[in-house]
Amino acid sequence: MPGEFDFIAWVRTQQSSDALVQLPAGDDLAVLRWPGEPLLVGVDQVLDGVHFDSVLHSPRAIGRKVMNRNLSDCAAMGCLPAAAVGTVALPSSVTMDYAKEIYLGLRDAADPYDCRIVGGDTGAWPGKLVVTVTILGTSAGVRPITRHGAKPGDALYVTGPLGGSILGRHMTFEPRVQLGRTLAQSGTVTAMIDLSDGLSRDLSHICDQSGVGAVLDAAAIPIHADVARLPPGKRTPLEHALHDGEDYELLFTGVAPPGCAAIRIGRITREPGVWIERGGNRERLEPRGWEH
Amino acid sequence: MPGEFDFIAWVRTQQSSDALVQLPAGDDLAVLRWPGEPLLVGVDQVLDGVHFDSVLHSPRAIGRKVMNRNLSDCAAMGCLPAAAVGTVALPSSVTMDYAKEIYLGLRDAADPYDCRIVGGDTGAWPGKLVVTVTILGTSAGVRPITRHGAKPGDALYVTGPLGGSILGRHMTFEPRVQLGRTLAQSGTVTAMIDLSDGLSRDLSHICDQSGVGAVLDAAAIPIHADVARLPPGKRTPLEHALHDGEDYELLFTGVAPPGCAAIRIGRITREPGVWIERGGNRERLEPRGWEH
Repeated sequence: MPGEFDFIAWVRTQQSSDALVQLPAGDDLAVLRWPGEPLLVGVDQVLDGVHFDSVLHSPRAIGRKVMNRNLSDCAAMGCLPAAAVGTVALPSSVTMDYAKEIYLGLRDAADPYDCRIVGGDTGAWPGKLVVTVTILGTSAGVRPITRHGAKPGDALYVTGPLGGSILGRHMTFEPRVQLGRTLAQSGTVTAMIDLSDGLSRDLSHICDQSGVGAVLDAAAIPIHADVARLPPGKRTPLEHALHDGEDYELLFTGVAPPGCAAIRIGRITREPGVWIERGGNRERLEPRGWEH
Repeated sequence: MPGEFDFIAWVRTQQSSDALVQLPAGDDLAVLRWPGEPLLVGVDQVLDGVHFDSVLHSPRAIGRKVMNRNLSDCAAMGCLPAAAVGTVALPSSVTMDYAKEIYLGLRDAADPYDCRIVGGDTGAWPGKLVVTVTILGTSAGVRPITRHGAKPGDALYVTGPLGGSILGRHMTFEPRVQLGRTLAQSGTVTAMIDLSDGLSRDLSHICDQSGVGAVLDAAAIPIHADVARLPPGKRTPLEHALHDGEDYELLFTGVAPPGCAAIRIGRITREPGVWIERGGNRERLEPRGWEH
């Protein structure tokens, strides 16, 4: 099947905003006009051999990862995670203890945020392990930050160093829930996304949905120490930071609030497209992140 | 891995009601105390080779089935389906059109109830097809009907004939959303469940959670015409109606409201256990429904 993004683009043509749906599929979470207060909802799945490797990774680590991916979506919207439901498709060969460890991994990740696991569906099958989590978030008085609010002249920030998550960080990252909430509360952040697909691709999502462009300052992009530990390959360290994906840091536009440890890596422009400047030269940057 | 029900029983020991969770996992849907109005949420997955067969069933029919299973959970609680999110794990070999057909199947089922699909996650993998749907329901002023309200002396009803769904009805059933809502609004229904695991097993869920027993009247149990079309096997027609599963009719206790076409099939007793009476004899009925 062709890229996931083609399919998502098609699904978005099938949807519309209405009395219930304030913000439809296509952001980190959908925003629903629920009686009382906006309700945010989203879902993420992890597949054996794609997002984890059941030979290498423990069931507890797999459970933690899928919950943390969902919590990272809450971080990107600046909302508070409140409740979650999950499904597990279990290979027929695994034990009850293996299933319990997945559940305990979900709880390891969710409990620190008082996010309750309130339901689920489990089934054994002659296939490989699939775990999904659907998360419900509350705006709790703070307007959710979307991907479509970036304005020309906004600065562009990232909350931590990028690249090389494949060495293990993609399983063990901490979702930036409190930081996302602080950024949303500041009133000076205009758009936000969590870096799951890679900086180049996730930045292009913000630009496409905001109808703007962006220029990255190559010298400012923070490269994670993991990149130096990667086996030699075709990508430069900067290319790893630009394209690797699964960093789960926040990328945001506007003005960083005082005291926020975010790193300024570029600016938003009226001219469309994503560009990178180094030593006075400007080049077009094609999104090359991971489709997963 | 051992039966799904052992795992669910264990998960329930890990959970508790709290300020958010009015009714935790273990019913058709969880009930959350959301600002404004109770929010109902649940999730269901369908797995290739377990709940459908991708060789026999079209992607559109598969999409319809998983959405209808979730709508049936709304029916069982007497709530209104409002929004859904879904995931699809797609075999790498399938086309974009195949993925679109799954989505359109979800829409076929959801649209008649104004239930909006507001988000999702799609990924290709070297495995078999998995589709999940999480559904959000609103109580909209009517107290949700749970599995734990049955009282000794209540009558026991089913909304249609049972058995033989494997011939095709398990893919094409209509969820009893309006009927479930009517029953919840009546004020005379004390407990309700949708028949997915089979009458004997689903009735035992009501009895266990209500702390009661039940006596079925064998002569009153409606047997679906499909049962006569099944290939010869070990089960009698009555046994098919008692144990086959995936009927997606509603089973409820209390008093059926006037004009409701439900069939009275037994009564709730103080004495625990599920029993069946035929010709003056009473026998214990062990749950033998389908674990899926």
